[in-house]
Amino acid sequence: MSQTQPLPAKADRSPDLDEVDVLTVLQALSDPVRLEIVRQLAGCERDDGLMCHQIRLSVAKSTASHHLKTLTQAGITVEREVGTSKYLTLRSAELEKRFPGLLDSVLRAAR
Amino acid sequence: MSQTQPLPAKADRSPDLDEVDVLTVLQALSDPVRLEIVRQLAGCERDDGLMCHQIRLSVAKSTASHHLKTLTQAGITVEREVGTSKYLTLRSAELEKRFPGLLDSVLRAAR
Repeated sequence: MSQTQPLPAKADRSPDLDEVDVLTVLQALSDPVRLEIVRQLAGCERDDGLMCHQIRLSVAKSTASHHLKTLTQAGITVEREVGTSKYLTLRSAELEKRFPGLLDSVLRAAR
Repeated sequence: MSQTQPLPAKADRSPDLDEVDVLTVLQALSDPVRLEIVRQLAGCERDDGLMCHQIRLSVAKSTASHHLKTLTQAGITVEREVGTSKYLTLRSAELEKRFPGLLDSVLRAAR
């Protein structure tokens, strides 16, 4: 007899970072809205990231969605859907392993 | 009576780095040709940089010129004309001061 299990989080579409080159990451970071998203995520103390609606941006929702998607596709963030909520997390540790010092130096410069 | 002096190097158009934001630098670095130029300059052991024709690129001369100009305008490189030769230098020390760790981490990732 099967037991009741919590619904698994949906799989994200963020790539394996070994397959991402530095140009893709630089392109993704070189936009003011995307850099602001990364900055807010980096300042988030929760391990499970921010719910997307908690990110404060001065652009239309559709524009924000486009930028969130770009960051995820570049391997910088990961999105998880848990129930009806969408959580966004920075892949800090993985990025540090793949491109040592890059994210930290960008965040320091963006403060 | 005036003495004969060597011609001074022409002033470059590279900006004061205090006036350059990190987005400008990221945008400039996030192109494969420009990143290759930066990589070659970083690998140059001469303090006075490379003469522009010594940079090996697989693009047309006019395209290369455009990219060289973008790097200079972003504060990443400086061009000096000495006589009929044009020298290009990476502003490594100044960039390190303005954006600590950024150029190094990008170069490490681009190897």
